[in-house]
Amino acid sequence: MPHTPFRLSLCAALFLLIAGNSFCGSATASTPAIASASDDSLMLRRIYDEALERGEAYENLRSLCKEIGHRLSGSRAATQSVEWSAELMETYGFDRVWLDPIMVPHWERGASERCLIPSIGDTLDALALGGSVATNGIITAPVVHFGSMQAIKDAPEGSLSGKIAYLDVPMNARMIDTFNAYGGCANGRVYGPSEAARKGAVAFVMRSVGLRADDFPHTGVLFYDAEVDSIPAFALSTNAAHRLSKLLRGNEGIELQLESHCRRLPDAPSHNVMAEIRGSQFPEKVITVGGHLDSWDVGEGAHDDGAGVVQSLEVLRIMKVLGIQPRHTVRCVFFMNEENGSRGAKAYAKMCEAAGETHLAAMESDRGGFAPRGFHIDGDEVYIEQLRSYLPLFEPYLIHVMQPGYGGVDINPLRSPTTPLIGVVPDSQRYFDVHHTANDVFENVNQRELELGAAGMTSLIYLIDKYDFPENVLR
Amino acid sequence: MPHTPFRLSLCAALFLLIAGNSFCGSATASTPAIASASDDSLMLRRIYDEALERGEAYENLRSLCKEIGHRLSGSRAATQSVEWSAELMETYGFDRVWLDPIMVPHWERGASERCLIPSIGDTLDALALGGSVATNGIITAPVVHFGSMQAIKDAPEGSLSGKIAYLDVPMNARMIDTFNAYGGCANGRVYGPSEAARKGAVAFVMRSVGLRADDFPHTGVLFYDAEVDSIPAFALSTNAAHRLSKLLRGNEGIELQLESHCRRLPDAPSHNVMAEIRGSQFPEKVITVGGHLDSWDVGEGAHDDGAGVVQSLEVLRIMKVLGIQPRHTVRCVFFMNEENGSRGAKAYAKMCEAAGETHLAAMESDRGGFAPRGFHIDGDEVYIEQLRSYLPLFEPYLIHVMQPGYGGVDINPLRSPTTPLIGVVPDSQRYFDVHHTANDVFENVNQRELELGAAGMTSLIYLIDKYDFPENVLR
Repeated sequence: MPHTPFRLSLCAALFLLIAGNSFCGSATASTPAIASASDDSLMLRRIYDEALERGEAYENLRSLCKEIGHRLSGSRAATQSVEWSAELMETYGFDRVWLDPIMVPHWERGASERCLIPSIGDTLDALALGGSVATNGIITAPVVHFGSMQAIKDAPEGSLSGKIAYLDVPMNARMIDTFNAYGGCANGRVYGPSEAARKGAVAFVMRSVGLRADDFPHTGVLFYDAEVDSIPAFALSTNAAHRLSKLLRGNEGIELQLESHCRRLPDAPSHNVMAEIRGSQFPEKVITVGGHLDSWDVGEGAHDDGAGVVQSLEVLRIMKVLGIQPRHTVRCVFFMNEENGSRGAKAYAKMCEAAGETHLAAMESDRGGFAPRGFHIDGDEVYIEQLRSYLPLFEPYLIHVMQPGYGGVDINPLRSPTTPLIGVVPDSQRYFDVHHTANDVFENVNQRELELGAAGMTSLIYLIDKYDFPENVLR
Repeated sequence: MPHTPFRLSLCAALFLLIAGNSFCGSATASTPAIASASDDSLMLRRIYDEALERGEAYENLRSLCKEIGHRLSGSRAATQSVEWSAELMETYGFDRVWLDPIMVPHWERGASERCLIPSIGDTLDALALGGSVATNGIITAPVVHFGSMQAIKDAPEGSLSGKIAYLDVPMNARMIDTFNAYGGCANGRVYGPSEAARKGAVAFVMRSVGLRADDFPHTGVLFYDAEVDSIPAFALSTNAAHRLSKLLRGNEGIELQLESHCRRLPDAPSHNVMAEIRGSQFPEKVITVGGHLDSWDVGEGAHDDGAGVVQSLEVLRIMKVLGIQPRHTVRCVFFMNEENGSRGAKAYAKMCEAAGETHLAAMESDRGGFAPRGFHIDGDEVYIEQLRSYLPLFEPYLIHVMQPGYGGVDINPLRSPTTPLIGVVPDSQRYFDVHHTANDVFENVNQRELELGAAGMTSLIYLIDKYDFPENVLR
């Protein structure tokens, strides 16, 4: 039965924070009839205590990063990560742990790329974009600078014949949410190579989509338009791009030398990995919480998205260890292939549909394991309003964002008018320092920030399960 | 003239954020008669744009950290940092830049400390606490473990004769604001050595006041009680403390070997360093914004408190470059000697008093250069209420905290019933990973987080200057 949400006074919430006693009462979510601010704030305190004092997300992440490392779809490491995930989930004694088989794209980088300015012998830090074709030998050609995607589109037909297009668009530092700035640049990475090929270019290089001035190139997916040639594509580190841009000013004839060895292999078998606690009252109604298990093939996929998967698993672990028996089924999903195909996301939605399941809500953590700020909600205003009514409970935990926004790539196929899609929103300032780089390693994840995220996710799922959405009953 | 604050609708604020246009209008703070949400939100947008696109705080911090490094009061580096500060301030063309001479304590660590478990030959990472006396040779003595300060106080008289007291109190991971957990431990560092000496101890060692498991010991100030012997005092890294505690369980006779070479020298001359923009209407009424220039003698004092000083300077720089002519004098103060004496803080309050100045407000940044969450206010409820009314303007910038709390050590002597003392509150999760350690280096400061803090500080000072506090006029 759904229940009306309430508002907790700030004073009460602060008192609980300051008092800071570890509450060990027996209240659980199975009897929501007596909804009280006090019960819920005490339960949130217990959830946060468990995450901060006895949390396992950080050590699980260490294991994933250090024992397996990066794990691009189709790779041997991705297969190992699936086994690692299922074995780990089994240790917690959830109601069910299982794999769902899927086929995923299989692209390999091969030997390291080389990007060189031969006239001055300067080597530029570069990575092939994900899915790029190889250079098949060394490409040496003059570089043409573009300050925007539109400038490439506006270039005359054939004007790039025999040339290398260089897209030099820095992220907009003014955007407070760095994902908005990412949105303004990722487009160039995804579609830039084919736009350049359309004008005759033999290769495409771009400034990495990163905010910081450093030597780490950022890879990421591209899509080739089947109507034009597939040309090799590279990202330069921001420092390398800065050097190249400086050199190109007033030096039209500068050449680049490029070499890459990427190859596309046949699709490979892989899996989504899932665990769940069955709902006591509505087992066929699901709350999914997940992240993606695959990563790019550099670094360790620590923030992207090792953090999201270990946090999602932590949600189930905390509920189980605190004796929270959910009314609806709470399911943790480690999605495969978010980075270059979303095959796991599509397969999961189909699997749920085939099983006749509906979703009360879905939550995704795929913005890094940084200090949580709140949640973005993709769904009807009535859901947003109800979720906003829980904010006072979160004030002691510094969660303050509960607003319309995107849920996430992996939960997006679960879209329905009765299912809010919830994106976890950590602080975004450092995410694009590490995103898709060799720098996305375990050491750059802070334990407490990761744990606070897991606790916030668990808390919101606890409240959603307990109070449902009255709107769902009215419909 | 004071003006009533207003409330900006969230929608308007979000629109401005999303629209993201660089506003170049001519509105300044000199004509506050027409207070409008739109004017203020546009000015905040300009302030943030300046900080994020053309900010100088980060490069100033790099210079301070890399060209000077750590700078304990009385050291040659501290003197250099005073010169560096004045020279830097002079480059900006403010109305006035000057030094105020003070005398500061002068303590030197000398050669590196050694802390060893001779029975197993294990060297423990350790630092002498700030102000500690030397061991004068090597001290070898059995260790007695204490789980709390109270346990030392409860120990029988003379029970520690010839022994080393070991205070092993981890920070409380459950506290969301890590400064609250710090408060629960710092007491042991400050007063523990004399409490142990009172029971006859020949030396004192403690678990570092840090949250993370790592190898960086945290130094920090101690105070010796003149009525008991001053005994050498050390902090062990959290990893070293963990090893020692494990070894002590069931092994009462374990000995430690300690060696340190610290010495206290005569007080040394130093300075507070100040710059100001004179107020157009109330030059004798001051808004002080500051941080402390000195640091502990390890690392680079990057977060503690290089960040605070470069942010405070950035407040003045942004105001000047945007043509904001404040009605009250806005003064940036680089305080000397926060870490072990607060001589600069005391001298500054005296200087202001002698000059017949009063303070409209004072703001301190001394919690690291992390992503800003908001502000703590030490002052009358009427001030807090007015400052809270500005929060909607800050919502697009993710500043959400405006609540009662401590202002800061350096502005504390400015306390008066008509002066709110404002502490900048960044996200606190990572601060005690670096605080007072060799790990507090420039590389651990994120440029955007630092800049967002400076922009938030500038914005709040802009609003305080523009609207004053009506209460001040009523009094």
